[in-house]
Amino acid sequence: MRLSRLFTKPLRQAPKDEASVNAKLLERGGFVYKNSAGIYTLLPLGFRVIAKISDIIREEMNAIGAEELFMPALHDKKYLTATGRWDVDVLFKVVSGKEKEPLFNISWTHEEIAAEIASKFVNSYNDLPFSFYQIQTKFRNEARAKSGLLRGREFLMKDLYSFHQNEKDMLKFYGEVRKAYEKIFKRCGLDSIYTLAGGGDFTASNTHEFQVVAPVGEDTIFVCSKCGYAENEEVSKMKNGGVCSECGKGKVKEEKSIEVGNIFPLGTKYSEAFDLNFTDKDGNKNLVIMASYGIGVGRTMAAVVEMSHDEKGIIWPESISPFRVIIVEILSGKDKDKKVVNTAEKIYNDLQTKGVEVLYDDRKGKSAGEKFAEADLLGIPCRVVVSGKTVDAGKIELKKRDKKNSELIKREEFFKIL
Amino acid sequence: MRLSRLFTKPLRQAPKDEASVNAKLLERGGFVYKNSAGIYTLLPLGFRVIAKISDIIREEMNAIGAEELFMPALHDKKYLTATGRWDVDVLFKVVSGKEKEPLFNISWTHEEIAAEIASKFVNSYNDLPFSFYQIQTKFRNEARAKSGLLRGREFLMKDLYSFHQNEKDMLKFYGEVRKAYEKIFKRCGLDSIYTLAGGGDFTASNTHEFQVVAPVGEDTIFVCSKCGYAENEEVSKMKNGGVCSECGKGKVKEEKSIEVGNIFPLGTKYSEAFDLNFTDKDGNKNLVIMASYGIGVGRTMAAVVEMSHDEKGIIWPESISPFRVIIVEILSGKDKDKKVVNTAEKIYNDLQTKGVEVLYDDRKGKSAGEKFAEADLLGIPCRVVVSGKTVDAGKIELKKRDKKNSELIKREEFFKIL
Repeated sequence: MRLSRLFTKPLRQAPKDEASVNAKLLERGGFVYKNSAGIYTLLPLGFRVIAKISDIIREEMNAIGAEELFMPALHDKKYLTATGRWDVDVLFKVVSGKEKEPLFNISWTHEEIAAEIASKFVNSYNDLPFSFYQIQTKFRNEARAKSGLLRGREFLMKDLYSFHQNEKDMLKFYGEVRKAYEKIFKRCGLDSIYTLAGGGDFTASNTHEFQVVAPVGEDTIFVCSKCGYAENEEVSKMKNGGVCSECGKGKVKEEKSIEVGNIFPLGTKYSEAFDLNFTDKDGNKNLVIMASYGIGVGRTMAAVVEMSHDEKGIIWPESISPFRVIIVEILSGKDKDKKVVNTAEKIYNDLQTKGVEVLYDDRKGKSAGEKFAEADLLGIPCRVVVSGKTVDAGKIELKKRDKKNSELIKREEFFKIL
Repeated sequence: MRLSRLFTKPLRQAPKDEASVNAKLLERGGFVYKNSAGIYTLLPLGFRVIAKISDIIREEMNAIGAEELFMPALHDKKYLTATGRWDVDVLFKVVSGKEKEPLFNISWTHEEIAAEIASKFVNSYNDLPFSFYQIQTKFRNEARAKSGLLRGREFLMKDLYSFHQNEKDMLKFYGEVRKAYEKIFKRCGLDSIYTLAGGGDFTASNTHEFQVVAPVGEDTIFVCSKCGYAENEEVSKMKNGGVCSECGKGKVKEEKSIEVGNIFPLGTKYSEAFDLNFTDKDGNKNLVIMASYGIGVGRTMAAVVEMSHDEKGIIWPESISPFRVIIVEILSGKDKDKKVVNTAEKIYNDLQTKGVEVLYDDRKGKSAGEKFAEADLLGIPCRVVVSGKTVDAGKIELKKRDKKNSELIKREEFFKIL
């Protein structure tokens, strides 16, 4: 894509009303636009990042046999009434026309709907197990909507629901999802810690979270420095500096962290409410065992920005960067400019032909300093400079976003590296 | 995909509470599930169809230079208040916590938000024109939510917004969008008619709709049999059997039709409300000229079902079919079954290796009659039968969903056809 055609433009100043690093950098770079507190538009650059994270999630979900679908956002009151969740604090409720009383809520989660759908297709043990997922918008009226995309009132979530004959089968799949989640976060450039946690409004059981250690995090976890066992403070009896309750050896460290994913064993709470049962081999009726599993898609993007940036801007991992390469064309107002433009255009076309996603800063009338500063802000992993100097040398200047130094290399060498 | 692993199952009976053909067939086939009146879940098969339609739309939008983004669904009251649309009938409004008065609505359209975003990035004429689009959920409290996916209260829409220096530039792009839309509908298997219409709640100007002639349609249009000129009855002065007002020659025919897309010239209504202006070459400030353009994504799927089905089920065009091929394995309980299964498995693997999307009906204990009936209901364009008979002949039985007869052909021949 040509930067001259992108309608968004990086802002010189960080937005004044944002406290968090992720919101400051994502807004300054033109990745997102804040419509209201905790409510953001994904601008074209941000949409590309989210699309890449979504694709990674889809690959790993499909690999464990989960089927993608898309449930509605407008939920009849009957759903939450059936499980006693209609009065949960964070609900946004919906009124229409002349009605005074809300008859709907907008999706804060989908356990009830998932259970009802499953109940239409499950009859016998032969129909189990299965799982389905969606990437869909969730709405929660969060009091603290001040951490940028870490805690939105409207946000994209991948939610997965699984259905089983018994606890044992559920725990087997739970283990597969754990591995899939660890892969997803790793592929997005995040080190996640599998952490024991409470069930919140979802279940009475303990659950597990995927936490990323970060000073900005709203959660506090205790992690063993030896075996890696971790607990969220809401359920933990471990103390900073104490001994790990799991291995009995390691020293426990208290950390601030961001919850990027969670998995909930749900038991039969939702099956019971929606008559989700099956006939077993002996002809007996049993309730289906459910579990649900979430990943904050926008939050994952925000966590990556929190973990991977410097004073100049974002440093995207290649896997989720909106583009792999940025070409910066530097003009000097001299005759040589023609050759510079031709060379830059040629590299741009060659990369596109090779299927490399490339952003080409072809803007005229911008100084080298401005262009470099904006390229650093955008955080694309590989910067290629084409200038009078590089053209004279018959080379290009290559700089990795996460390295200090640049190098002059031949064009063919560059294509080989890619 | 193996049919034995798909969690949804075709229903024997059409749902009793649906009047429209599209809802009956889509629900029976397990493409959608109705959660409430006018509110549907896209089940895995339906999700695949929608994903294909979305991909076609994305290709054609990107080809005319539109940039994809994703705007929020939760809209602060300030947006619609600014343009006097806060009291539109079909709005769903949102209350939260202890508030009695709604402070938000959920997205029924996005002109206001699009104008505000654009205003942050447009300064001079150099920044124009540009356009952006999204595929996102819309919510409208429709009184008549009885036409299945033709008129939902929650539905997926592709909406595009464009921004211009003047009317002339807008009309040029308007023409490009018209061509792109005609391509999109054609690629989805629909003949669309470009129709003059009114502006509804969006604009005082005349607009254009893309209509598909169908008895189930809620719209009435008048079409010239000679030049193809068409008008929606809401703006038309033409009469059934009369002479075309455009060419003055053709006879006009009255038709029932489904509106699958529309394009609206918006003038400066939204630019004015959101201070969206630019400095022209002479240094004068001007308001930006806007237009918006919609395609109902779910409605397009529903329109295809209305136009392309028979008494047995849906007949998908290849371009948007959830799978290109369905393999039906027919077992007889005899020794030969082993060879039948091996052959079917081999064809399944070969097709997957070749990148052909294939659904494999590998279910045991289902009769040939049941399997054929379900394959017809699902409407996949190409059915391959593997049975004792075909294995003996060293061939496969190929039947196109839209043809009456099947043919026995060699496997290699079949691969060549694909």
